[in-house]
Amino acid sequence: MTPVTLLQQAFQQTIYPVSGHGKRNIQVLKEVLNHCEDELDSDNYGSGPLIEDFQNDMARFFGKESAVFFPSGTMAQQIALRIWCDAQGIKKVAYHPLSHLEIHEEGGLKELHQIEAILLTDQDKLIRLEDVVQLKEDIACLLLELPQREIGGQLPAYEELVAISAYCREKGIKLHLDGARLLEVLPYYQKTAAEICELFDSVYMSFYKGIGGIAGAILAGGEAFTKESKVWKRRHGGDLISLYPYILSAAYYFKQRQFKMGQYYEEAIELAALYNDCPAVETLPVVPVTNMFHVHIGLPKAKLEALLVAMYEATGVGLTAYLKEVSETSCAFEVWIGDRYGQVPKKELAHAFEWLKTALRAV
Amino acid sequence: MTPVTLLQQAFQQTIYPVSGHGKRNIQVLKEVLNHCEDELDSDNYGSGPLIEDFQNDMARFFGKESAVFFPSGTMAQQIALRIWCDAQGIKKVAYHPLSHLEIHEEGGLKELHQIEAILLTDQDKLIRLEDVVQLKEDIACLLLELPQREIGGQLPAYEELVAISAYCREKGIKLHLDGARLLEVLPYYQKTAAEICELFDSVYMSFYKGIGGIAGAILAGGEAFTKESKVWKRRHGGDLISLYPYILSAAYYFKQRQFKMGQYYEEAIELAALYNDCPAVETLPVVPVTNMFHVHIGLPKAKLEALLVAMYEATGVGLTAYLKEVSETSCAFEVWIGDRYGQVPKKELAHAFEWLKTALRAV
Repeated sequence: MTPVTLLQQAFQQTIYPVSGHGKRNIQVLKEVLNHCEDELDSDNYGSGPLIEDFQNDMARFFGKESAVFFPSGTMAQQIALRIWCDAQGIKKVAYHPLSHLEIHEEGGLKELHQIEAILLTDQDKLIRLEDVVQLKEDIACLLLELPQREIGGQLPAYEELVAISAYCREKGIKLHLDGARLLEVLPYYQKTAAEICELFDSVYMSFYKGIGGIAGAILAGGEAFTKESKVWKRRHGGDLISLYPYILSAAYYFKQRQFKMGQYYEEAIELAALYNDCPAVETLPVVPVTNMFHVHIGLPKAKLEALLVAMYEATGVGLTAYLKEVSETSCAFEVWIGDRYGQVPKKELAHAFEWLKTALRAV
Repeated sequence: MTPVTLLQQAFQQTIYPVSGHGKRNIQVLKEVLNHCEDELDSDNYGSGPLIEDFQNDMARFFGKESAVFFPSGTMAQQIALRIWCDAQGIKKVAYHPLSHLEIHEEGGLKELHQIEAILLTDQDKLIRLEDVVQLKEDIACLLLELPQREIGGQLPAYEELVAISAYCREKGIKLHLDGARLLEVLPYYQKTAAEICELFDSVYMSFYKGIGGIAGAILAGGEAFTKESKVWKRRHGGDLISLYPYILSAAYYFKQRQFKMGQYYEEAIELAALYNDCPAVETLPVVPVTNMFHVHIGLPKAKLEALLVAMYEATGVGLTAYLKEVSETSCAFEVWIGDRYGQVPKKELAHAFEWLKTALRAV
């Protein structure tokens, strides 16, 4: 069994956890099902109104011809890249060095699809047009992740996206959007999802990040592309007889949170400012461009852990359940804003950050 | 949208459908969740008590070192074969020509894993020891499906299984059990699951066949095998943040139906006899050895369809929702016994079969 750390324990006992939507317990699914009729028929291996209607809604939302529901983004994105590689007759794609495909998928793209990935730019930077122009090898597809999660959810300027898209179209390079957090970028760009997706040949979005569903993802693109993706979904073992627990929760929480991303974004800016006001603390980016950012604190892990546990106990406010050791003298963690932030009384939050500031000064 | 046939419509309106457990609507999941505490924590990418406890229970049930929950059998089995091929350094396996891997998975084993399948025996026969002995090529693994679904759920004698297992061990061939319907074979063999699994190096079982869960599968074997299977599960995109809708329903319905397979088996024998008493009708096998069998009827599809629609309307008893055209003059369909059969009054069933007999005589 996975051991629970002291920090996790302390975080779980706080009255005011600050990050995310809430606990991932089965109440999240019960609430969805309680809003559905008992007699609602399951989807059936990718067919039936329950899945087809939702896919059609999502295709319209993205401004694409069609869309396919997948159990996971890992599966959806490998398949998207495989289809583009097969279409182009090139077994190479390019993406960021900290792409989900590179660091979280056990090399599935290589092991299952024999696709080689060219890593663009330094891992702490965003991909720029010049990185794409300077590519010396032919690639079938470029994958862009918006926002770039592993560097705090940074975003390129919209004009840069347009330029990359135009360049790829000119060169015949397919452009795929890792839009795991697609809704979360719309307030910054002040664009609709369809306006962003128009720049891409294919798009994936996750349903359990900002949307807060149980699991699952959607892949959208042209009719021929999505049709082929269904064949690969079957091959991967993702064409389940019933995906409805994920589909129903995706639809339910999408509707509930679709228009809350602007609020989360503003709250992220507010919270990041509180962090940046503390000694030895810096957020990445300093001013968030979505509902997420990373917090870097210049303290050794064990020391910071003890400090945070004490803070949670003293203030009832919980900042994070884990710490990533960056070096012997610094740690980092991810913050993303969901429903919880709005439930924390401003007074309690201010008090907690005063506590943190004082404690950090005393270190 | 998938069109609904007249036969499906008529079947859905019958008072007494005979096959299966019931409608696959969301009530099936609601019932499970209503028996769980709201605060029960989700599994988390394959970790947490919810998934780990269930995996441990299943490992014990199979008499194996450990077990891993998968979203689908397609994924679990390809991965099992891949692991055995890598271990043996041979990219070949052998299975039945009508194996799920051969006819329902869009060639995933070949396309994703570059594994070649050698098809043993004729498609209307069971694999015998002699088929394995006569193999001229080296294989990493032999997959046996118990029961052999596509030929009516037939089973080899237990002694034949023992002989195949002994031969494979002698020759260093890994033996994998496609036990999608593993519980369903136990009454015929009069063995425990562990006694059957002892003959195999790895075992897969499905949770939405006789058990009647929502979806999902389990893969069991030695510790090193299941550990490696988790890496491949991640690569396939099956390591979801939350699999609990499937796990909870698997556990719930496993408990509810684990000991009902003997009853379903006896009922299958009873129902098959009713079919075989009709002119131009024959079941495969004539006497079922599990809770399933196939029905072959010597009539053209359109004619039989009209006859069944009339029968459903006249008697309220529904036999099948679909017909497979075998030739211009014959059709077949699958029957599997679940909870529904016991709910059909014997009088109504007898009346329906009298109606069918009379109608078939008149054709």
